[in-house]
Amino acid sequence: MDHYFERLKNGTLKLHALEQELPPLEAVKVRRTYLETEQGISLARIGSFTMDIDRAVKRNIENMIGAVQIPVGVAGPLTVKGEFAQGSFYLPIATTEGALVASVNRGCTAISKAGGADVRILRDRMTRAPVFATRDVGHAKEVVDWVTQHQEELRKTAESTTSHGRFLGCTPYVTGTSVYFRFEFDTKDAMGMNMVTIASERLSEVIEAGTGARLVAVSGNMCTDKKPAAINLIEGRGKTVVAGIALSADLVREVFKTESATLAEVNYRKNLLGSARAGSLGFNAQAANVVAAVYLACGQDAAHVVEGSSCITSAELRGDDVYIAVTLPALQVGTVGGGTGLDTQKECLSLLGVSGGGDPPGSHAKKFAEIIACGVLAGELSLLGALGARHLARAHQALGRG
Amino acid sequence: MDHYFERLKNGTLKLHALEQELPPLEAVKVRRTYLETEQGISLARIGSFTMDIDRAVKRNIENMIGAVQIPVGVAGPLTVKGEFAQGSFYLPIATTEGALVASVNRGCTAISKAGGADVRILRDRMTRAPVFATRDVGHAKEVVDWVTQHQEELRKTAESTTSHGRFLGCTPYVTGTSVYFRFEFDTKDAMGMNMVTIASERLSEVIEAGTGARLVAVSGNMCTDKKPAAINLIEGRGKTVVAGIALSADLVREVFKTESATLAEVNYRKNLLGSARAGSLGFNAQAANVVAAVYLACGQDAAHVVEGSSCITSAELRGDDVYIAVTLPALQVGTVGGGTGLDTQKECLSLLGVSGGGDPPGSHAKKFAEIIACGVLAGELSLLGALGARHLARAHQALGRG
Amino acid sequence: MDHYFERLKNGTLKLHALEQELPPLEAVKVRRTYLETEQGISLARIGSFTMDIDRAVKRNIENMIGAVQIPVGVAGPLTVKGEFAQGSFYLPIATTEGALVASVNRGCTAISKAGGADVRILRDRMTRAPVFATRDVGHAKEVVDWVTQHQEELRKTAESTTSHGRFLGCTPYVTGTSVYFRFEFDTKDAMGMNMVTIASERLSEVIEAGTGARLVAVSGNMCTDKKPAAINLIEGRGKTVVAGIALSADLVREVFKTESATLAEVNYRKNLLGSARAGSLGFNAQAANVVAAVYLACGQDAAHVVEGSSCITSAELRGDDVYIAVTLPALQVGTVGGGTGLDTQKECLSLLGVSGGGDPPGSHAKKFAEIIACGVLAGELSLLGALGARHLARAHQALGRG
Amino acid sequence: MDHYFERLKNGTLKLHALEQELPPLEAVKVRRTYLETEQGISLARIGSFTMDIDRAVKRNIENMIGAVQIPVGVAGPLTVKGEFAQGSFYLPIATTEGALVASVNRGCTAISKAGGADVRILRDRMTRAPVFATRDVGHAKEVVDWVTQHQEELRKTAESTTSHGRFLGCTPYVTGTSVYFRFEFDTKDAMGMNMVTIASERLSEVIEAGTGARLVAVSGNMCTDKKPAAINLIEGRGKTVVAGIALSADLVREVFKTESATLAEVNYRKNLLGSARAGSLGFNAQAANVVAAVYLACGQDAAHVVEGSSCITSAELRGDDVYIAVTLPALQVGTVGGGTGLDTQKECLSLLGVSGGGDPPGSHAKKFAEIIACGVLAGELSLLGALGARHLARAHQALGRG
Repeated sequence: MDHYFERLKNGTLKLHALEQELPPLEAVKVRRTYLETEQGISLARIGSFTMDIDRAVKRNIENMIGAVQIPVGVAGPLTVKGEFAQGSFYLPIATTEGALVASVNRGCTAISKAGGADVRILRDRMTRAPVFATRDVGHAKEVVDWVTQHQEELRKTAESTTSHGRFLGCTPYVTGTSVYFRFEFDTKDAMGMNMVTIASERLSEVIEAGTGARLVAVSGNMCTDKKPAAINLIEGRGKTVVAGIALSADLVREVFKTESATLAEVNYRKNLLGSARAGSLGFNAQAANVVAAVYLACGQDAAHVVEGSSCITSAELRGDDVYIAVTLPALQVGTVGGGTGLDTQKECLSLLGVSGGGDPPGSHAKKFAEIIACGVLAGELSLLGALGARHLARAHQALGRG
Repeated sequence: MDHYFERLKNGTLKLHALEQELPPLEAVKVRRTYLETEQGISLARIGSFTMDIDRAVKRNIENMIGAVQIPVGVAGPLTVKGEFAQGSFYLPIATTEGALVASVNRGCTAISKAGGADVRILRDRMTRAPVFATRDVGHAKEVVDWVTQHQEELRKTAESTTSHGRFLGCTPYVTGTSVYFRFEFDTKDAMGMNMVTIASERLSEVIEAGTGARLVAVSGNMCTDKKPAAINLIEGRGKTVVAGIALSADLVREVFKTESATLAEVNYRKNLLGSARAGSLGFNAQAANVVAAVYLACGQDAAHVVEGSSCITSAELRGDDVYIAVTLPALQVGTVGGGTGLDTQKECLSLLGVSGGGDPPGSHAKKFAEIIACGVLAGELSLLGALGARHLARAHQALGRG
Repeated sequence: MDHYFERLKNGTLKLHALEQELPPLEAVKVRRTYLETEQGISLARIGSFTMDIDRAVKRNIENMIGAVQIPVGVAGPLTVKGEFAQGSFYLPIATTEGALVASVNRGCTAISKAGGADVRILRDRMTRAPVFATRDVGHAKEVVDWVTQHQEELRKTAESTTSHGRFLGCTPYVTGTSVYFRFEFDTKDAMGMNMVTIASERLSEVIEAGTGARLVAVSGNMCTDKKPAAINLIEGRGKTVVAGIALSADLVREVFKTESATLAEVNYRKNLLGSARAGSLGFNAQAANVVAAVYLACGQDAAHVVEGSSCITSAELRGDDVYIAVTLPALQVGTVGGGTGLDTQKECLSLLGVSGGGDPPGSHAKKFAEIIACGVLAGELSLLGALGARHLARAHQALGRG
Repeated sequence: MDHYFERLKNGTLKLHALEQELPPLEAVKVRRTYLETEQGISLARIGSFTMDIDRAVKRNIENMIGAVQIPVGVAGPLTVKGEFAQGSFYLPIATTEGALVASVNRGCTAISKAGGADVRILRDRMTRAPVFATRDVGHAKEVVDWVTQHQEELRKTAESTTSHGRFLGCTPYVTGTSVYFRFEFDTKDAMGMNMVTIASERLSEVIEAGTGARLVAVSGNMCTDKKPAAINLIEGRGKTVVAGIALSADLVREVFKTESATLAEVNYRKNLLGSARAGSLGFNAQAANVVAAVYLACGQDAAHVVEGSSCITSAELRGDDVYIAVTLPALQVGTVGGGTGLDTQKECLSLLGVSGGGDPPGSHAKKFAEIIACGVLAGELSLLGALGARHLARAHQALGRG
């Protein structure tokens, strides 16, 4: 090992080149040990992993030194009444924040006692939007016109790059001399970013050749990937999912120790008015907590929490009962590819019955999205309830003191 | 074990109550095995963890069944010239997305070759904004006036709830009959959400008693926690950090195989114009990738990726050179509390020399934030370069075909 | 007159009912005089108008007391190279803010010297989006499905309500139990709000009858009318127009006394980075000034300045020259209806050659939109130039003092 | 006149130079007649104005050809219970859109019958935010630190430029190498843009001299002037005003022919959920209509409708009654300067008792702002009512058909 350390130290061997000389497990060990020695620290726990390292090194990580362990708990059973997910599920939640599992669990209890949450997928399309430079605004319009007139050709080009995906069309946007085409695809059980990027690169070549426009970047931020953006809130990206549940006054009292009207008021003053005044694109209580935790457990791209957690929570009184819903316009999820093949993540997916490709293709990812939306609903119910009840508690104390 | 299964099945024992009858490791095992049996699946890999389960069960997770493993790689060395972080660092990156480490690594190379990135923290304050209901708009103004006149009393109340934190003030916002106070705290080396929530609850009681306003929720979404919000982009939450680097034309060519002008153009058409037209609050290329990966490695709250990844990337030509900077208004990080005490996460923090509380208090969290900002800068450089060069490659091919 | 005053005073005659007893001019006079007497003020100047009062009272105003006079100046000649507007125009500018006409005029000079601005209309559709309440999220999806399947029926219904307009389709959006349909119409030379509202009311009845959804409001704010909204910035409302001009370094120096690079830098730091950090939906310098002034002169709905002034200004260096463009996604304009028939406003439209309906229908409104966009471009050039030069002036002074 | 035409035609006389050779009225006439001749049109109605042309030409307009007349109606009486405005007012409304006055009038009736609207001003500060370029992010922080340490000096500098205004402080924002200082002023009865711009120019010189930062533009768009921006929605610009009213169930039925619950539902599904999903910064029904119309009548800057119409409308059921409020964070108004001195506009201001400077200074502008906010509230009530009742009408018809 000293031999490698010396070369690493004098720069004749690059840290990332170790895999060229050693089998993965050895390379990872040398790299980790080198860092330990250099920094005078121990990375022993990071080194104590059990994952299939060949796959990880090939597909998921470079310069690997080991793995972090994130504890996983379950919330549930959660009763889901979707078009793809039907039945009771235990939601795997990977988090380091105490009380999150308990919070979601309480929401699951309410949902299941109420007979299950309705959930529907309203759109399903992964997007990529390259940006092109044109000579002037006249040229920009010509480029748009050309693309509009060559939709069929572009469809064929796009679908020639993928055996699974389907091209759903494109929307053009012109800003000055910059032209963006937001390509949309049905990517079946894959989250699909790679698929649409590859297709978009090929489409961009065709457009360049046909129009004289110059590709500046295969992603022009109107996709919009991993940034909060109104375009995703409005038009969706990945799956647009809505889940809702009617709770009776009795159930609200039993599970949340508060009133329906309180849940509605917390939603109104916090999630609607508070977010409005804050200039927020998120009108919810804790959607990100649930989305992040399920994404981590199930091998999703953690950076997709940014859009995935876009959520509008709505709450309407119906007499003494209340109907609460969550609208998630941009859930980007997959059950194949990315981190879904890692051992522990695969197990979490299997806990939901969605590991690997579905039959028909796309049905696993859709089922997964429906379950997540109901999980987010559970989280919202629970936090609205907790905020509401805490206040009531205080009010009761106040009365008690009187 | 069958004994527990039967009770779990018939509902006389709750899944989350196992720890009341069994030591943690046993409880986790029974719970996991129960799910395996019920669902007819294997969760063996999730069960093969090495973390200190007592701590995890007490502080980080409920209903635990095991852990997911997320591979960790390193990018670097990354040369940082901050006020708290100075020197070369290996950035721990936990991700399941192939090519991310390599991408950040290339950015680190550019930064280090250029002599290191400058980085500064401009603001540092964790916030919480309870929402109160008032009788009418006249009462709303009275409540604001009362709070404005009782700042010193509120400061004392706030600081009585914490031995570490410091109360920095509050900003009032009125929307109709709803009144929000955005409390600000210096939370030192803790990310601080718990600290400020506890203080805010106590402050809310004082305000209720003094004004007759009624607390609706201790978080009124003007905090804004875990939702993208302009208030954080503008005023910051946690640490507002800016990092920048001047790259010579030669260095750009050497590392990125492209030109300074290309980097600036990609930033202009993608990160600025593209995001503007998309109604985005994020003006960057891949800040979320880096923030998410470092947060995961280092035990940060994964849902904080939402605001943490808020980033405006700027790029200015200076002759043939280019100056590129990232502005991160809402990095919420801590080196104590939350997931920072878990074994593998603690090791990642120690790799950066920021595990545990700093001396003086707050210096570890600040150093950590500076390093992350430089890591984000590395990611931005790399992706701008890759997008720019991919185009050039195509242009070269096109010429070759001619 | 005293007779009316007495009844007005004791409430037996309502101020707005005067037209029922008196011819318009008399009613207006009695009303105005009554207010003068009551308040002890003079409204003589307001009373000294020349407009055709019959038309005004019938179509434009209720409870009329007279008119305000807003001074009108002209900027130009402005050379426009559009698809509908071609040639030189004098832009009528109604404003009370000194220096605005002069500012736009300077921009017109630059544009005309450079040979004229290119301008293109990219989309043209007025929208209205009713909101419906549904029973639950399952019902919400059924309603969307029903509408999707009845597009042809809806088209016929929509077009039965108008002799001019054309139904272009609709986009459904679901948020919890609320369903929005954003109907799109080609409204030809009319701005079209009334036309699309009438059509939307009829469409809403059909949808209610077909689906059991309950109409809550014929405008559900996803239109979005008279509020700044990303949906308009992204998808457009009314006409989406882009205008651009290439300026040589010499021309920039001659007209603006500054450099191309300075114009680009002001645009970059102010219009792009400044607006980004401010959480703005407007990325321009003074689009609202020009849009408001032309709208006022030409009888457009003044409240439409809100969306009409949505504008992204872009500026790109090309060697020593610069290309500057404005993108206006939501210009809602008409040359018939509303205030366009008032005498003075009609004259302003005729100054641009766009008074009344065009041949073919829609061509006047399109020509008008193209001219406005070039006027906005003139305003942007001028203010970027003024900001840039002011600084240079300071720099020169500084040098002079040295 | 032919003499001038010839020179205008051959370019030896510029259109805007006519005032150098002729008295204003003559110059205006020659200019107008020249355009009439050139374009073969009549501008006679534009030429038939009565305003004091000397003042207009000097302060309000260049290249004047006449004036447009905008009809003015009144809504009211409107009962206001503010801190500055108390009593009943007739609101002057200048508009070309039929039904607007009647709509606002109905809202005024409801408010007055309910005893008057409460209204409060929560903040009052006009802003201007210059942008500076710095060398690098380290320099950016130095510049911020310098300004933070020289507040007293800056205050003196700022106040030396104005006899009326008061410097209230500044907030620094850094984005990469760009530094913005958002200066805040109390501008008393003036809207104040000129005042703060002049002060900001002088402040910028001091900062340049003290720090080596380079002023790029005296407005860096974080002001934010005449663009919709979250910074104004959150922090306010000009006056932040909130107005509210409690309406009994009986009154709602009497005036609006609908139920309290319907008003609340329309507000919830349209103004809150609809605007949220549209990515809007405006959560109201028709604030822009009222703000635009009163601004026009009263000589305010029409482009300020963009921010002035920022409004969040809230509606809360209280048993069978309802409390409705409007929050206007950015009302920029003045009663001196700009268009307030024009004859007809001055009369409109006098109708509200706010023409010219108040005693104490600032009280007229504050009173004016309070009245506008109540006018906006009237417009909101009325449109919520109309939308709600239209539906009920339909429901009744439906029942009738059954």
